[in-house]
Amino acid sequence: MSDTKPLAPPRDAPPASAIDVTPIEVVEEQLALVKYDAAGLVPAIIQEEGTGRILMMAWMNEDSLRKSLETGRTWFWSRSRQEYWCKGETSGDRQFIREGAYDCDADVLLFTVVQEGKGACHTGEYSCFFRKFGAGESTATPDH
Amino acid sequence: MSDTKPLAPPRDAPPASAIDVTPIEVVEEQLALVKYDAAGLVPAIIQEEGTGRILMMAWMNEDSLRKSLETGRTWFWSRSRQEYWCKGETSGDRQFIREGAYDCDADVLLFTVVQEGKGACHTGEYSCFFRKFGAGESTATPDH
Repeated sequence: MSDTKPLAPPRDAPPASAIDVTPIEVVEEQLALVKYDAAGLVPAIIQEEGTGRILMMAWMNEDSLRKSLETGRTWFWSRSRQEYWCKGETSGDRQFIREGAYDCDADVLLFTVVQEGKGACHTGEYSCFFRKFGAGESTATPDH
Repeated sequence: MSDTKPLAPPRDAPPASAIDVTPIEVVEEQLALVKYDAAGLVPAIIQEEGTGRILMMAWMNEDSLRKSLETGRTWFWSRSRQEYWCKGETSGDRQFIREGAYDCDADVLLFTVVQEGKGACHTGEYSCFFRKFGAGESTATPDH
């Protein structure tokens, strides 16, 4: 038995998560079917496992789709910032992929995830779809 | 009491549905928030009420969004055919809207619907997302 103390994690590392990471094997034949728009992007719907709640929709390119499957985390392409982002890497509100699917035209993706932390929306709401159409529905974002 | 027999419906009318139609009041302040892409379109995710299952994603423009709320049925804009289509008007597999929402950026819509008939997908599958990523998953469309 060694009495060496375990090394502390580096200061800037995000805290480890207790949630299992379950990568999905990349099958090239499947990835080759996916159709991207003129900007090389495909919409990815993110649904919460268990509740079935729709958390968000964001855009993937081929690289971020591949990286999402390989890492079991959601990677997107930000159209406004023109850069990759791994959901929750800054906020800690990570998404752990449990299943990925593509639609009949292979131009829309659907991922089922375990959502960590405070939820998916940058406003502090759990889901990005927190505003409803109809009389008496507020257009405001609740204060968090 | 009249003994006049009720008029038969016109021969080409689709069969009436037993499912309630529940329009959503159009609130101009809400519609004005919605952001469309360069082609004037916004993605609309269609989720089944009760099961939470994602049935499909299609595109709406401002007119089809307005018509969807007003009629309580899903109206889309077909990018390939460049025309409006009311889901199920030909197939009978109609969608009856129960709730509509828009996301934090107001550039994605989410509708909760009651799905009539055989489902949402033109392939005969109930949901368009019938193919999964991963080893051992078929890329084929089941024969219906």
